[in-house]
Amino acid sequence: MRFDRMKVFSGSSHPKLATAICAELGEPLGRISSVRFSNENILLQVDENVRGCDVYVVQTACSPLHDNIMELLILIDALKHASAARITAVLPYMPYVRSDKKDRPRISITARLMADLLESAGANRVLVIDLHAPQIQGFFRIPADHLLAAPLISDYLLRKDLHDAVLVAPDAGEVKDLIRYVDQLGLPMAIIDKRRVADDECAKAVNIIGDVKDKTCILIDDEIASAGTMVSSASYLHQQGAKRVLAACTHAVFSGNATERLANAPFEEVIVTDTIPLPDQKRFPSLTVLSIAPILARAISCIHYGDSVSRLFTGALQPVVR
Amino acid sequence: MRFDRMKVFSGSSHPKLATAICAELGEPLGRISSVRFSNENILLQVDENVRGCDVYVVQTACSPLHDNIMELLILIDALKHASAARITAVLPYMPYVRSDKKDRPRISITARLMADLLESAGANRVLVIDLHAPQIQGFFRIPADHLLAAPLISDYLLRKDLHDAVLVAPDAGEVKDLIRYVDQLGLPMAIIDKRRVADDECAKAVNIIGDVKDKTCILIDDEIASAGTMVSSASYLHQQGAKRVLAACTHAVFSGNATERLANAPFEEVIVTDTIPLPDQKRFPSLTVLSIAPILARAISCIHYGDSVSRLFTGALQPVVR
Amino acid sequence: MRFDRMKVFSGSSHPKLATAICAELGEPLGRISSVRFSNENILLQVDENVRGCDVYVVQTACSPLHDNIMELLILIDALKHASAARITAVLPYMPYVRSDKKDRPRISITARLMADLLESAGANRVLVIDLHAPQIQGFFRIPADHLLAAPLISDYLLRKDLHDAVLVAPDAGEVKDLIRYVDQLGLPMAIIDKRRVADDECAKAVNIIGDVKDKTCILIDDEIASAGTMVSSASYLHQQGAKRVLAACTHAVFSGNATERLANAPFEEVIVTDTIPLPDQKRFPSLTVLSIAPILARAISCIHYGDSVSRLFTGALQPVVR
Amino acid sequence: MRFDRMKVFSGSSHPKLATAICAELGEPLGRISSVRFSNENILLQVDENVRGCDVYVVQTACSPLHDNIMELLILIDALKHASAARITAVLPYMPYVRSDKKDRPRISITARLMADLLESAGANRVLVIDLHAPQIQGFFRIPADHLLAAPLISDYLLRKDLHDAVLVAPDAGEVKDLIRYVDQLGLPMAIIDKRRVADDECAKAVNIIGDVKDKTCILIDDEIASAGTMVSSASYLHQQGAKRVLAACTHAVFSGNATERLANAPFEEVIVTDTIPLPDQKRFPSLTVLSIAPILARAISCIHYGDSVSRLFTGALQPVVR
Amino acid sequence: MRFDRMKVFSGSSHPKLATAICAELGEPLGRISSVRFSNENILLQVDENVRGCDVYVVQTACSPLHDNIMELLILIDALKHASAARITAVLPYMPYVRSDKKDRPRISITARLMADLLESAGANRVLVIDLHAPQIQGFFRIPADHLLAAPLISDYLLRKDLHDAVLVAPDAGEVKDLIRYVDQLGLPMAIIDKRRVADDECAKAVNIIGDVKDKTCILIDDEIASAGTMVSSASYLHQQGAKRVLAACTHAVFSGNATERLANAPFEEVIVTDTIPLPDQKRFPSLTVLSIAPILARAISCIHYGDSVSRLFTGALQPVVR
Amino acid sequence: MRFDRMKVFSGSSHPKLATAICAELGEPLGRISSVRFSNENILLQVDENVRGCDVYVVQTACSPLHDNIMELLILIDALKHASAARITAVLPYMPYVRSDKKDRPRISITARLMADLLESAGANRVLVIDLHAPQIQGFFRIPADHLLAAPLISDYLLRKDLHDAVLVAPDAGEVKDLIRYVDQLGLPMAIIDKRRVADDECAKAVNIIGDVKDKTCILIDDEIASAGTMVSSASYLHQQGAKRVLAACTHAVFSGNATERLANAPFEEVIVTDTIPLPDQKRFPSLTVLSIAPILARAISCIHYGDSVSRLFTGALQPVVR
Repeated sequence: MRFDRMKVFSGSSHPKLATAICAELGEPLGRISSVRFSNENILLQVDENVRGCDVYVVQTACSPLHDNIMELLILIDALKHASAARITAVLPYMPYVRSDKKDRPRISITARLMADLLESAGANRVLVIDLHAPQIQGFFRIPADHLLAAPLISDYLLRKDLHDAVLVAPDAGEVKDLIRYVDQLGLPMAIIDKRRVADDECAKAVNIIGDVKDKTCILIDDEIASAGTMVSSASYLHQQGAKRVLAACTHAVFSGNATERLANAPFEEVIVTDTIPLPDQKRFPSLTVLSIAPILARAISCIHYGDSVSRLFTGALQPVVR
Repeated sequence: MRFDRMKVFSGSSHPKLATAICAELGEPLGRISSVRFSNENILLQVDENVRGCDVYVVQTACSPLHDNIMELLILIDALKHASAARITAVLPYMPYVRSDKKDRPRISITARLMADLLESAGANRVLVIDLHAPQIQGFFRIPADHLLAAPLISDYLLRKDLHDAVLVAPDAGEVKDLIRYVDQLGLPMAIIDKRRVADDECAKAVNIIGDVKDKTCILIDDEIASAGTMVSSASYLHQQGAKRVLAACTHAVFSGNATERLANAPFEEVIVTDTIPLPDQKRFPSLTVLSIAPILARAISCIHYGDSVSRLFTGALQPVVR
Repeated sequence: MRFDRMKVFSGSSHPKLATAICAELGEPLGRISSVRFSNENILLQVDENVRGCDVYVVQTACSPLHDNIMELLILIDALKHASAARITAVLPYMPYVRSDKKDRPRISITARLMADLLESAGANRVLVIDLHAPQIQGFFRIPADHLLAAPLISDYLLRKDLHDAVLVAPDAGEVKDLIRYVDQLGLPMAIIDKRRVADDECAKAVNIIGDVKDKTCILIDDEIASAGTMVSSASYLHQQGAKRVLAACTHAVFSGNATERLANAPFEEVIVTDTIPLPDQKRFPSLTVLSIAPILARAISCIHYGDSVSRLFTGALQPVVR
Repeated sequence: MRFDRMKVFSGSSHPKLATAICAELGEPLGRISSVRFSNENILLQVDENVRGCDVYVVQTACSPLHDNIMELLILIDALKHASAARITAVLPYMPYVRSDKKDRPRISITARLMADLLESAGANRVLVIDLHAPQIQGFFRIPADHLLAAPLISDYLLRKDLHDAVLVAPDAGEVKDLIRYVDQLGLPMAIIDKRRVADDECAKAVNIIGDVKDKTCILIDDEIASAGTMVSSASYLHQQGAKRVLAACTHAVFSGNATERLANAPFEEVIVTDTIPLPDQKRFPSLTVLSIAPILARAISCIHYGDSVSRLFTGALQPVVR
Repeated sequence: MRFDRMKVFSGSSHPKLATAICAELGEPLGRISSVRFSNENILLQVDENVRGCDVYVVQTACSPLHDNIMELLILIDALKHASAARITAVLPYMPYVRSDKKDRPRISITARLMADLLESAGANRVLVIDLHAPQIQGFFRIPADHLLAAPLISDYLLRKDLHDAVLVAPDAGEVKDLIRYVDQLGLPMAIIDKRRVADDECAKAVNIIGDVKDKTCILIDDEIASAGTMVSSASYLHQQGAKRVLAACTHAVFSGNATERLANAPFEEVIVTDTIPLPDQKRFPSLTVLSIAPILARAISCIHYGDSVSRLFTGALQPVVR
Repeated sequence: MRFDRMKVFSGSSHPKLATAICAELGEPLGRISSVRFSNENILLQVDENVRGCDVYVVQTACSPLHDNIMELLILIDALKHASAARITAVLPYMPYVRSDKKDRPRISITARLMADLLESAGANRVLVIDLHAPQIQGFFRIPADHLLAAPLISDYLLRKDLHDAVLVAPDAGEVKDLIRYVDQLGLPMAIIDKRRVADDECAKAVNIIGDVKDKTCILIDDEIASAGTMVSSASYLHQQGAKRVLAACTHAVFSGNATERLANAPFEEVIVTDTIPLPDQKRFPSLTVLSIAPILARAISCIHYGDSVSRLFTGALQPVVR
């Protein structure tokens, strides 16, 4: 199926990333007017014709979170009724991606709800990066392309001396993220065993499974939110005799006073991507930000022209025997 | 169809109203736990069994608007998957109710989108008050009960001396609200004719259609947001020789510095309902707030027990010849 | 998205308009065979290949109304299963457009039902003119292009001497139609205030709001059905001292003995469009019929080629501040 | 699942049948107000509360066909939005039941479209009698109860002397109807072999398959529309030496001059049911009308109280080996 | 609408037919990897890019039946989420095609369920041959192209001496298949009248309707499953004095010991198509297999390029007067 | 919402479990007739009235897998059209539960497809046990109750001497199952680190993370299929100095020669549940089978009577801090 034109629009969450994607694609960013009334209602107007176009809307999950979600849904609705031929929601960091299971009674699997709302508003496809669990891709009834940041971050890590490196999961529940890196880097792994003590809701490291003494420990997680887990894990690894500690994660949420905590923690380097905007006040000396824009631009190009997306990322998707 | 039990839950937008409704119904308010994480994600847990119950969720459109919308959708999703038999979204002031038409190209009819999102999340019915246009009821594919505040406010006005009163629409576009009151009160009407001047986006009163000189003018609108229209209309009416000016409206949005403007404007009285929470700092001496809770409670009771809702409001719904 | 070919088909309601649209487009009218059996069942056969085509079906709401509605639904169904790529229902006068709200208990919002039935039968888009209320556009989940006749009629009126003209709404409920013309013509306005007397279902003019004495009054409505309102309004305006009275409306339903009543009423001119067929017996000397075919043809062309429809009608859609 | 109350409503197509059903059930007929405007629009208002009720709407396919179809859809929509708990469309003669296959290119399978439209309007179930082909039951995604008239008519026939009787299909395409009677009556069968001659669209009897000479021939069909087939078949059977000819069919459409033709044809008796209204002018001396009301009433009662419908009709539904 | 590329994939049911179709089309068969785990789970991987492609999946109903059905659904799901632009399920013999009606209480119309499952998995169209009843086409909400094998088989029969031939239905219920051939060949017809005796579930021939003595009898059915009916019919025809007996059917299911029974029955020739694979052990000397591949290839080509499918088969689809 | 009656039906996959559930509930098993024709088509007939009933259908994923899946879908369809009020698919072992992510390009997330097919066939709810990943619950748009077997198996383990016990994950990817047991038992954990060597698709244990020397190792997995992983893990643990090795898992698939391998492997005990039938030939001396029937019966009872299901399993669902 041939589409006349590709158009990329940006919500207000991460214009810098959208601009970088457009620069990679050699396309101008689509024009939108936005008014926010005193009653907080948003009025979005698409300022150029999109009839029959293949439209991509870039919006990520960051503060103000719910404003950004509603802006995304309203923009998709406006594009649909403006007769766009196909609308792809590009979600570098999918909203509510961690609300992916019903681990207590009578709660919402909100990541699933997000998938339903996007479809209801008129999205025809989604493009996402590093879902908290790969099963979340199955929440969508519309085709979803799921990119991984592990190859990007692994490429960066491979330039370092990794002879004594070990990949460390900060919690047994995060081992699945670790495996993506193990596949890329072929390093040994270790897991911090955390347990909850009765009447104390906060889990504490009680053991280290695997060998970290005198090692370069690379803590791996898919996202860093309040940074509590990462910072306590780094301390614990040093207690266990780690030589140095690095952290690598895809989604730099950096909520609350995460920035300060990370800046003051004993990390040699914290490596993240720009799926979420990182203004200057959220940056600190040991932080390295790798841009996801080239990968997203290539994926958008493949989707538009009907080329294989998986071929771009062969390393990350090599067949796994069940 | 018989339902075992009615349960009423409240989102965080207007707990006072939900509590008042429950008091009228003689039912306890349903228990919910709510956590807001540092990344702004909400985790809602329904803390009591709702299997097979007939559930009502009260949430109104007020600041923080998009948080409240998403909270409502998440709560409905949680209740649906907790096996509630029927979920009614009770929306005293429906979000985005003024975005009800496509009056410029490539915008969203967001009130319609809201209807779709509610249905997508799992709402089986809605209960709303004073939609900006009665057609909005048709945006819902699920049954929608539409209550009017005009009888409540008219009852209040009828206790006053209305011998020289005239109902005034602040703009030709708001005449439809006026008609609801004309039906109740049988008073003469007038309209302020506003026009936009070229290169000046703000509409200005250029004429008064109808007789207001030496009259008690009652300005009617469905909502007061920034109060700009209402305040300038009051001034204009006084310029035109009005004896005194009152304002009556259903939805007291009072955004921006509306409260201050209204307090300082030449209104004898501003009459509103409590479809939107009005904390003390939004109140002023000439403000009268009529509670909508008894009407909502009666409507919920009718819906639950299968009684006629329209019978309650016969006055407001008398047959109109087309 | 590219479509191979545009094809325009006509239901049996208004072949003259469909033919005029095709002439404007330079396209032949699509061939259909139609049989009406003695049991009133219709058998429609599309007599040319439509696989992969971009198909437009022109059908308007006129007598025999329900035959025309069912014919439209059957034709859409036949085209869908004949593998048309996209089907646009072109509805110059949308059926049941006035049944757009629930103004009494337990009635159908039939305009909404029409939208649902069209979607259920297989329509992918609609193209409509002058919906009774702009909110009706929101009844459609499929993209809907809404054209206005006000620019066409205003252009015609502007050729006349309008120095003493005033636009008059025959009822407060019809002010919204008036506003479209006010935007185009910049004239003053007036409203006839009609009230229902107890036990008498018929509303009567009790007052005129605004100045009509010695004026050229242009009565504006979106449709003229039985003409009762229009004719009594004209008389009332003359009673109030109007110099002369014209009427302008988009949809000339002319039901019952409307034609006779209009011909005998004190109208200098009655200006309508041809959204509904007007056979010779429905015409009278003071009637002017403006053809909507060029506007529809241009809109169809824009939809087919992916050009902006709104750009065609910039005057009518200039941004309105809320 | 328990429903509070059963309510039966009638469209305007066949009030006599609906009244008879209500009499059997001992229930009053539901109250509806209906207005038909001069523009042919219908306004239906349900005049009693139906919240939570189990509602049955009786409407059959007869002249004016499309008015009746639209009235049915509008009534279902009104009942749905009036919060009926369950709506069953009772269609004694389903509209467009013969448009059940695509026997020429680019036509609509309109019986299927009818099923979709009913579901779209809000029907939760249907109750039908003698579908032209049993497969049509599969057109519904909602549960459909399919009753047969063959047991009723067979019971009547069994009171006659059938010692020399043979069941005759007027066309090879109608053999399936015959089989229903063969199962009930155990009589021999015959088929009139009709063929179309080139350039002559009308099929002619060219042969009789089976033995009819000196026999009592009972012509069987599911419906009699224009009666052309039935009348020519009777003549042909007499030519072939039949002793006497009867006709039995479920649906007495009697379109065009069918009544006159049947009255003048050599039928000893024409046996039909009242699935379609038969006013006096459509009756003639040899016509026998059996009422279907008791069967429909029993089926409605079973559906309402959750009893087995099939048990009522065991004879007609005995297992058939494939 | 233009599609970039056509791709044809084959499930594991009938690769020979898929290969023959591809040869006719001059297209390579699409590459798929398939693993069947020890727990019988199937893992299908599409081994080439299908983004934006117009995809055809060939799968027929044969042993192992349910494995083939699930494989088809899984393959369609994989193709949909791999972003195929359009997926057509090509079903030479549609699964469960005989479960097309509810001829006993509380059974499934499984052919209808199959249509729903195909749509649910992501099929956009289907292409089928000789449905057991033409109404089954109406089970699909997606466009369905229905091809007939009668022209192919008739062409073959016309090369024989048919001067004394009669077309015979093995049961009154199968007359509809016969009619397709009567339309093509213009021969006389006969029907074997089978009845069930009480307490004996198996139907027995009790009479022949029509003339078969000294005739060439061609037994017609849409499918031969266990061959019980066909074989007993052939014997019965010989008892009734038939000169010779042939059988013609589209779908050669040949289940149980059908092959042996047919080989030993007094058939001069058994003519079938290859809609179902016929390995050598299912073949016997009097069997003739006509390939359906050219017809399917031409239909696929028409669907892909937007040409009329019906035009190919004009003979089979000539207009029939109702 | 009140339902008249609960009825439990069983597919042919695991009648013993369904019977045990019915015994716990004190309800008779629902009656079904099933015929399997020579062409492998299944004909299911529900032999008792289910109108308005609350129906539970028990079917598990076991050989013949696809026959069982299709039987389930057909049975649900039959029950829906037989007017069951609510249908709950009880899936002790959900089919294709391991196909829950797209870990290579262009494959199906078949667990998601299963959810869609169940919904399409007419299931209103599902009841499942130990999904491979908790996210799979989000694949359902219908309410899904997800039970865990960990409390049952933990209760059994707690009767043993666990003073030197360690819970072992056979692979880093299975750590999530381990955590369920860690929550119940509070034991230390270890992980076998498996890696794939180039050109060798089979993963091999290369390291043990955590301490197993002289310990009682309890290998935990959600299912045992071919048992290859479990058996090699047991050997590896003994190599690493484990004192004794037990295995605990929920779903005993035991495909291929799993039984033999397990019987000969150095397990002290293999503990499973009966979510999958285990005929005598699949049993061996060290196997312990715990019945899941009481838990399922209690859950069904809760669902039917509207009691809380989560309350039954409080231990397993204690709040987890994110």
